[in-house]
Amino acid sequence: MILNKIYLDNLIRTALLEDINYCDVTTDYLIPAEQTGEGQFVAKADGILCGAEAAVRVFQLLDDTVKYELLKQDGDEIKKGDEILKLYGKTAVLLKGERTALNLIQHMSGIATASHRYAKIVEGTNASIADTRKTLPGLRPIQKYAVMTGGAKNHRYNLSDAAMLKDNHIDAAGGITAAITKLRAKVGHMTKIEVETRNFDELREALDAKADIIMLDNMSPELMKQAVEITAGRAVLEASGGITDETLRAVAESGVDIISVGALTHSVKAFDISMYIR
Amino acid sequence: MILNKIYLDNLIRTALLEDINYCDVTTDYLIPAEQTGEGQFVAKADGILCGAEAAVRVFQLLDDTVKYELLKQDGDEIKKGDEILKLYGKTAVLLKGERTALNLIQHMSGIATASHRYAKIVEGTNASIADTRKTLPGLRPIQKYAVMTGGAKNHRYNLSDAAMLKDNHIDAAGGITAAITKLRAKVGHMTKIEVETRNFDELREALDAKADIIMLDNMSPELMKQAVEITAGRAVLEASGGITDETLRAVAESGVDIISVGALTHSVKAFDISMYIR
Amino acid sequence: MILNKIYLDNLIRTALLEDINYCDVTTDYLIPAEQTGEGQFVAKADGILCGAEAAVRVFQLLDDTVKYELLKQDGDEIKKGDEILKLYGKTAVLLKGERTALNLIQHMSGIATASHRYAKIVEGTNASIADTRKTLPGLRPIQKYAVMTGGAKNHRYNLSDAAMLKDNHIDAAGGITAAITKLRAKVGHMTKIEVETRNFDELREALDAKADIIMLDNMSPELMKQAVEITAGRAVLEASGGITDETLRAVAESGVDIISVGALTHSVKAFDISMYIR
Amino acid sequence: MILNKIYLDNLIRTALLEDINYCDVTTDYLIPAEQTGEGQFVAKADGILCGAEAAVRVFQLLDDTVKYELLKQDGDEIKKGDEILKLYGKTAVLLKGERTALNLIQHMSGIATASHRYAKIVEGTNASIADTRKTLPGLRPIQKYAVMTGGAKNHRYNLSDAAMLKDNHIDAAGGITAAITKLRAKVGHMTKIEVETRNFDELREALDAKADIIMLDNMSPELMKQAVEITAGRAVLEASGGITDETLRAVAESGVDIISVGALTHSVKAFDISMYIR
Amino acid sequence: MILNKIYLDNLIRTALLEDINYCDVTTDYLIPAEQTGEGQFVAKADGILCGAEAAVRVFQLLDDTVKYELLKQDGDEIKKGDEILKLYGKTAVLLKGERTALNLIQHMSGIATASHRYAKIVEGTNASIADTRKTLPGLRPIQKYAVMTGGAKNHRYNLSDAAMLKDNHIDAAGGITAAITKLRAKVGHMTKIEVETRNFDELREALDAKADIIMLDNMSPELMKQAVEITAGRAVLEASGGITDETLRAVAESGVDIISVGALTHSVKAFDISMYIR
Amino acid sequence: MILNKIYLDNLIRTALLEDINYCDVTTDYLIPAEQTGEGQFVAKADGILCGAEAAVRVFQLLDDTVKYELLKQDGDEIKKGDEILKLYGKTAVLLKGERTALNLIQHMSGIATASHRYAKIVEGTNASIADTRKTLPGLRPIQKYAVMTGGAKNHRYNLSDAAMLKDNHIDAAGGITAAITKLRAKVGHMTKIEVETRNFDELREALDAKADIIMLDNMSPELMKQAVEITAGRAVLEASGGITDETLRAVAESGVDIISVGALTHSVKAFDISMYIR
Repeated sequence: MILNKIYLDNLIRTALLEDINYCDVTTDYLIPAEQTGEGQFVAKADGILCGAEAAVRVFQLLDDTVKYELLKQDGDEIKKGDEILKLYGKTAVLLKGERTALNLIQHMSGIATASHRYAKIVEGTNASIADTRKTLPGLRPIQKYAVMTGGAKNHRYNLSDAAMLKDNHIDAAGGITAAITKLRAKVGHMTKIEVETRNFDELREALDAKADIIMLDNMSPELMKQAVEITAGRAVLEASGGITDETLRAVAESGVDIISVGALTHSVKAFDISMYIR
Repeated sequence: MILNKIYLDNLIRTALLEDINYCDVTTDYLIPAEQTGEGQFVAKADGILCGAEAAVRVFQLLDDTVKYELLKQDGDEIKKGDEILKLYGKTAVLLKGERTALNLIQHMSGIATASHRYAKIVEGTNASIADTRKTLPGLRPIQKYAVMTGGAKNHRYNLSDAAMLKDNHIDAAGGITAAITKLRAKVGHMTKIEVETRNFDELREALDAKADIIMLDNMSPELMKQAVEITAGRAVLEASGGITDETLRAVAESGVDIISVGALTHSVKAFDISMYIR
Repeated sequence: MILNKIYLDNLIRTALLEDINYCDVTTDYLIPAEQTGEGQFVAKADGILCGAEAAVRVFQLLDDTVKYELLKQDGDEIKKGDEILKLYGKTAVLLKGERTALNLIQHMSGIATASHRYAKIVEGTNASIADTRKTLPGLRPIQKYAVMTGGAKNHRYNLSDAAMLKDNHIDAAGGITAAITKLRAKVGHMTKIEVETRNFDELREALDAKADIIMLDNMSPELMKQAVEITAGRAVLEASGGITDETLRAVAESGVDIISVGALTHSVKAFDISMYIR
Repeated sequence: MILNKIYLDNLIRTALLEDINYCDVTTDYLIPAEQTGEGQFVAKADGILCGAEAAVRVFQLLDDTVKYELLKQDGDEIKKGDEILKLYGKTAVLLKGERTALNLIQHMSGIATASHRYAKIVEGTNASIADTRKTLPGLRPIQKYAVMTGGAKNHRYNLSDAAMLKDNHIDAAGGITAAITKLRAKVGHMTKIEVETRNFDELREALDAKADIIMLDNMSPELMKQAVEITAGRAVLEASGGITDETLRAVAESGVDIISVGALTHSVKAFDISMYIR
Repeated sequence: MILNKIYLDNLIRTALLEDINYCDVTTDYLIPAEQTGEGQFVAKADGILCGAEAAVRVFQLLDDTVKYELLKQDGDEIKKGDEILKLYGKTAVLLKGERTALNLIQHMSGIATASHRYAKIVEGTNASIADTRKTLPGLRPIQKYAVMTGGAKNHRYNLSDAAMLKDNHIDAAGGITAAITKLRAKVGHMTKIEVETRNFDELREALDAKADIIMLDNMSPELMKQAVEITAGRAVLEASGGITDETLRAVAESGVDIISVGALTHSVKAFDISMYIR
Repeated sequence: MILNKIYLDNLIRTALLEDINYCDVTTDYLIPAEQTGEGQFVAKADGILCGAEAAVRVFQLLDDTVKYELLKQDGDEIKKGDEILKLYGKTAVLLKGERTALNLIQHMSGIATASHRYAKIVEGTNASIADTRKTLPGLRPIQKYAVMTGGAKNHRYNLSDAAMLKDNHIDAAGGITAAITKLRAKVGHMTKIEVETRNFDELREALDAKADIIMLDNMSPELMKQAVEITAGRAVLEASGGITDETLRAVAESGVDIISVGALTHSVKAFDISMYIR
């Protein structure tokens, strides 16, 4: 499993405590404790699967004797009707874990599917799709993992692993050049420096100051094309802000390297998967 | 604050650990430690505000000397351009909390705005909109609170506070009547019993067995209207499954009491709010 | 296992950290690491068993190779001298888990035994015994589960899953009718509303306002009987306050539906069980 | 505050999460957010107060602007009707914290009151009352503190801070002398060694092997008196097992040093305290 | 395993979350998920092994199918080149756990090795080496365990399990005698009392007041020898402060019972162990 | 404060729970609850201060009315005898927090002092000193922060924020070129790729494959000088392994960019600071 198992188990425990509290009144009073059954996850739409192993962990954390069969893997393209996962165990356990498992796999597959769709749109251009830090509290690891699974790229993970210069930083330092110079002297060799720019003057200053990445904030595809020419490979160019489904391809064709899309993680549409228990 | 402060603080701490890790390299190296500034949250769209106090807590947990002014309250209708919140404190603190606060308030306002929109569509009918257990791991409290803030209703919170009979439960008990009878003898007087039904035979059996709530699973508005007549006030009727924006009003006009909408919490569109720091 | 395994494991881990800290000096220096033995739980009194599986988890969390045999199940009536549980594993593990396991099973069986005793007293009347929110910090799930295991009912779990109107709420809303009306418009269809009343005027107002449950606070059995007549089945009646072992049967015979007993969880007498290790 | 604030706050947070979950539906919908009020804790019985500061922390953790006045201190003798504590703050906060605060203070005062009663019974003899490790999961710190507050003594806290030799340890080491010798060579100078004995042969061997404390397991007061004579001050003698209210004084008069009473913490009777909110 | 498994697993989970975050980009993209391999821990220096089972737990917590062979045990003397541990499992798991496992075993073996070295220096004298509370946050259990494994003794674990009178305590109580008298009346029979003394007047007063242990603070070996004579076995004597490698033997030969060494835990030199993965 | 306050507070709470457990028997029984006093932190050696604010937080978390005065800041050079910090509050609080605060500040200042010493040795060369992932469990944030405070650089934080190719990765991918190519296609634009090399063939291959950083593993300063010439600025060069105090300057003068030193965090010597309480 790629996703850190320690994190995932903690997250699932949190979700199971939320959803079950102390018992499942319906199941505990009506389903015989020893009754066993079979669970089946089936896709109700076309997309990219993500979170299948996570769904399995939900049931295993409730009862480590649950057995399973993964018919599809994270990252697989799935079609409506495809069987994804089979589970064998106590019926009560299958019923108690159902909602938590579906909530996880639907959210993760929703992200992977959208990431894949965006990546497809820019295919053949120089651009890659990247996520942002616009994630939901406590869910960043599964969200970043789902983006990666869908075929898009992960941007910086947090505020400590890369530098991003915004207006406030630049003003406090006395300009782009001063800010980059000051930062470069402090940060380690693993830390990249990105600068937000809104016009070509700022772009040129950032290039001269040897920024690693330059964000073009809310520029039109035409302006981006000029920015790409000015840059001439001296820095990675990231397009960000105001990009829609309609403009995405044009932005990608401008020649920028990275297009970051907050919606991948802040506005997720759940991917429809059902669980049948027999 | 309505939302449980203990839960909220825990959630925010989780988010801040994710987003800051050990430091904010950009801010810590470039913003003078004692520099103070002002933060301003501004709506970039029309909708219902939710999470304003939660956003404030983000900054207070980083530095309890941060001051604030709430210009709008949770539940208020806000228009694009409305100022929501002002913060006064160290610039470094405003920068470190920005993303976490926005992630929270945008998610919560997104849910409240959608809940409000759905509630408006059914206005004037007998129906209320309700949420489901289709929430994101660890976020159920803020999601349920946002639904309530937007003017929709909360369904049961978890598997222990109300009973919901599905096929598996009914089959194991030997039918709807047997299942309800068995359950009623066990659960406390605070626990309501809901039954999923797919046809009028099941509906009639559930009514005779005195189910508190009966879910009409994937029925057309026409069938629901008949179900309402059959029921004649003897139980609460809940419509669920396959309801779209287009069919929602028709469903509501069928006379059902509750329409539950998973998308309120499983497919949230972030509500656009910006933070300006000066 | 009915009790949520995630919660139970967390609770046991907390208890083991308290009781063992970093090591068991006596056991670690004197018992050979590989010595194996047998543990036996034996009842030292008559009552209802609760917590047998919980006791097993204590040892499994210390060492997942421990084997066991459950000779009695949660909910079983047990007699002094009955063998409840057998464990097979490393002697050091049996010794380290002994106190934590006994503390759990004795507390839970104490609650189940008392719940059963109360339930027996009211047998044959219309009344059920219910617990309250008068639980110990962090132990509500095991306490509520033990009440249920002993044959009494669970009242609302917490402040969010049902409404209970006290003086302060009624006064703030401007009376019982206003309070119920206001609340009913807000809460979901799963949320029952209970009102505390101290006299027949309040009772009648609560009935007219269609409260789901009406608590008769500190009334004599005679008054309760009148209340039952006034109510005539229009609401669930709950007796609460000042009920003793001596008055319980009389209260039950008044015709009320629910008698809530705080002592079930706030004043628990441990049920005596010993563990023998060989 | 004597009790470790970090532990106490964690415990209270756990209890508040249990009791409030995401909101208090009754209070949040009916009590105006800005309404302020006064809370008053009043004793409904005679006893020893414990947990007053803990009760205050409940409200402060919900809202740090709550003010209070402690009219009685932990350890004070209180009489039925005594006012213990006054609180000033938002009515909603007082209502939300009420049950959690009462659960804490009633449990802690119950332990302190019982500890005091036992200590009074043995007053004037050589014996002190001590608690045991028979505590409830997660509550050992507040329970041990309440014992101390009531005027009894704390026995060892956990398995690592003192040694207690039981049959299994003695058998594995090849006898009392061998066990003590082996242990003494290993443990630090801060670690006392106690031995369980059931007859005078074992007592004499333990004395010769220089045990620090010797437990007399289930002996009659007469036998204990002889044990005291045999011991002649060479070790601390602890009476344990089968001691009732009736036999306690006789046990104490036998001359033993310590009488350990599991019921102090495993079978607590809540001390009745009410909270009035105006 | 001597070390409390619950604590150890929690610590390892914390470390793995720190070190892996959401994934291991290098391993997850380059090592085939199903590739298996063998890991080997080899000593790169001479010393005392500690933490071998802890290292195994790191891998087991990532994947419970990992198999292992312990070639050396905690407490064993190991030589440069000795093979300590073999692991069999997925290559990706071995790579992900490597750093966390090494960090643990190197730190613990570093402490055990130093403890052993100090214990050797005082061999043949009356003195034992003891640790202190000068430990690293969150690591006290593994540090105390490593000291014990290396052959030195554990001093008190925390502020609640034994009393240590410093100037502030003595001054507040009005002198050594008053302080000891007051304390002895309060603490349980398991709690030892130690007094810090700086001269013979204080030593004599502490002896007369029957302190259990007397710390000789920063005295020369000559003065300690006199202190031993004055004491004449009436209390345990502990030397502390200003003791270096050069003076340690002389201090031990003065006749004191305990020499406490903060450096054992506050200034640990990692013991060099490598892990090879094939 | 640069260090993430949420993390720091969590760490301190863990340490205080370890050190105080439920109470401080000595202080709680002897120091009057209302007695106030002054605490003073004084350097006992020359070095770089780190952890002063962390020390303050220890006392504030025990009692938020503690006042303080920081006479030196993190990063300041301090001399033996320098006063660092003054605290004003309840004597009991100062005593309870003393050991935890000293443990933190001594560890952090020890790291900062060593980092500074190493940085001084390479001053005037092209090389910077960097830390590693050889940190202690749970302490990585304070250790990395202390390295930064002492004037050295932070290497990658964890396995997810940068790639480091070791033998196993290279072998699995089929060579350095294949590995870098495969990785580059997957990771985001923020992720740097480092390769371990042991000879010039590997170095040349890594350069041609455009590795961002190349580690020279266990090479002599002479070989490193040649590697610098071969590299000619095409990649960052990192020296690692087998570097001692004696060889450090020579390594730095070879022209490499980064020298990583595990001992900065795995073998920390506490910096001596005392706390006086009056």
